[in-house]
Amino acid sequence: MLKIEHIGIAVKSISYSSVLYEKILGVPSYKQEEVSAEGVITEFFKAGEDKIELLEATAADSPIARFIEKKGEGIHHIAFAVDNIYDEMKRLKNEGFTLLSDVPRRGADNKLICFVHPKDASGVLIELCQEII
Amino acid sequence: MLKIEHIGIAVKSISYSSVLYEKILGVPSYKQEEVSAEGVITEFFKAGEDKIELLEATAADSPIARFIEKKGEGIHHIAFAVDNIYDEMKRLKNEGFTLLSDVPRRGADNKLICFVHPKDASGVLIELCQEII
Repeated sequence: MLKIEHIGIAVKSISYSSVLYEKILGVPSYKQEEVSAEGVITEFFKAGEDKIELLEATAADSPIARFIEKKGEGIHHIAFAVDNIYDEMKRLKNEGFTLLSDVPRRGADNKLICFVHPKDASGVLIELCQEII
Repeated sequence: MLKIEHIGIAVKSISYSSVLYEKILGVPSYKQEEVSAEGVITEFFKAGEDKIELLEATAADSPIARFIEKKGEGIHHIAFAVDNIYDEMKRLKNEGFTLLSDVPRRGADNKLICFVHPKDASGVLIELCQEII
């Protein structure tokens, strides 16, 4: 893994949480983006060079809605930047990790993404992401 | 906030989760440290320049033990590096945030730390940390 690409936080209302995170981080968000296929609206903040992504569900049966229903608002995933997502997926699969998709999907922020099952990572949902160039 | 300093992950067994995170991140841990005052053993990994901290409780009534009892293993906190923790604590307090201590405490990895209450940050436990120099 190259670095932490971003931290994803599941929130009930982006407009409400956005105000809080602007105060916490001391900067306004720099981007809002809807990812229809994942049923989310996302909003991005910078903490120096690092990124925080707020996620609000746009559908009652989306992963973010189900997460909040089960666990409440809070940190949803850690995303790690990788050079080649296909190689990393293969490597982790060979190490015995369960991936949530067989091929990378298109995520927010111009990325190819894939998730590792939290059961294999001490309860943490890990996202691999590769910039689409 | 200057950057994400580390992500803290609450685990039942450092020795077990350590093996998983070594595989996920592709590197072994570089440090283990006990913080008696917080009732934890910590283990640190690098993801590029970023840090992941695994936390195992050393006492049944420690914050990490209570967190796992309530929510299960998973991401426990996001730590942001700050230049001056006293200034940041004052700033956030003035913005209406609840801090979990009135003065910074001594944390792992040679840091002064203070937590912001998750109720003020969409369910996320936020740690401020300043390097002790």
